[in-house]
Amino acid sequence: MHTIYGIALGPGDPELLTLKALRILKEVDLIFYPGSITKDQKKSFVYPILQYHGLEHKELKGFFLNMSYDRQEASETYVATVKDIEKAYQTGKKIAIVCEGDISLYASFSYILAGLQELQLPVSLVPGINSFSLGASQHQIPLSLLNDKIAIVPRVKNITEISKYFLEFDTVILMKIRSGWNDFHSELVQKDWKCYYCERLGTNQEYITTDLTTLANREIPYFSLLIIKQ
Amino acid sequence: MHTIYGIALGPGDPELLTLKALRILKEVDLIFYPGSITKDQKKSFVYPILQYHGLEHKELKGFFLNMSYDRQEASETYVATVKDIEKAYQTGKKIAIVCEGDISLYASFSYILAGLQELQLPVSLVPGINSFSLGASQHQIPLSLLNDKIAIVPRVKNITEISKYFLEFDTVILMKIRSGWNDFHSELVQKDWKCYYCERLGTNQEYITTDLTTLANREIPYFSLLIIKQ
Repeated sequence: MHTIYGIALGPGDPELLTLKALRILKEVDLIFYPGSITKDQKKSFVYPILQYHGLEHKELKGFFLNMSYDRQEASETYVATVKDIEKAYQTGKKIAIVCEGDISLYASFSYILAGLQELQLPVSLVPGINSFSLGASQHQIPLSLLNDKIAIVPRVKNITEISKYFLEFDTVILMKIRSGWNDFHSELVQKDWKCYYCERLGTNQEYITTDLTTLANREIPYFSLLIIKQ
Repeated sequence: MHTIYGIALGPGDPELLTLKALRILKEVDLIFYPGSITKDQKKSFVYPILQYHGLEHKELKGFFLNMSYDRQEASETYVATVKDIEKAYQTGKKIAIVCEGDISLYASFSYILAGLQELQLPVSLVPGINSFSLGASQHQIPLSLLNDKIAIVPRVKNITEISKYFLEFDTVILMKIRSGWNDFHSELVQKDWKCYYCERLGTNQEYITTDLTTLANREIPYFSLLIIKQ
């Protein structure tokens, strides 16, 4: 039987795959990949990356999550996917499960990993470039120097919460900013912090700016983040 | 004239280079790489990665930092290196500067970047896998799920400081743990936190453990980190 690989594909740019990720994906028989369902439309952010590398001719199985806060439904998808993986594993297939960004940071893969660990199946993980590393590279800024401290905070709610982190941290990385954006954007513009906005990094719709006033009427997508420094 | 590339090489494993990093390194004429000097011995952590990919036949220039807290001396090395880069740029050479891990996280490259930006030279950065992402992969754990918050803290001094972060954060990543290790190790063992120790990740001397008692008499190297979860 073969080790089951969890493979991070990085933040969108197919060239930001690691050599290890690509080598293993070429070696496996079957690739499980994630996607989302919005209004009955199935979409996958990672499928184009697999296509780019000519992997779409392999056996591919998508698992799609409804974009809602219904964790029960998501949980059922993960359980079903783990069962599919186990079945394929028992037939002796070489298997990889891929994910966006890094494999340990807010990754849907983590739920599948928990299921595979419960079944005591052999697993090996390959990390990937995370989105805020690409964001810092595109803005050409350091996230940290010497003894700088970094806070990574998803779904921040208001400006008070952000200010609090700066009592202790040098850099604050806000992930999944869409939900609270309208509640803190206007106050954030007033601050004299340095803000580095990133949207759809690594894709051909990538957009970055340091001028938050230009974002006043912008629709903020799910794949957006903000790096802030004092 | 050509864009000057800052290229992250990742946390030690030559296969954890990105496709983009390797493509650009093959295209350039001249590669600047970092190293350290300890007791008059020059060492470079990244040179073996360049060798692995057959890049040692290119024109290579090392810049070596004395392993001390003398920032003045380090600063002089960076200034001299920036001058060398500028000179080579003026001759029309294609240039890359490489660094360990990611290019924006505690990277010596950030000082060189500041120098190049001051000279208004065209720069492009390629991010890399950071060490704690590889650490989480090797331990097969998620760093964050859903709305989890992460604190990244270098050179932590004592257990009180670590405890404080857990009031707000779900995962605490301690970087550069060697300096305070003897001051907090014995108290850390008493806590019922889940600890994931990582040492020399990605190299053939890699060592990881979740049992901190086994580290009681271990010499902790510079390239070590600790991921802690409650």
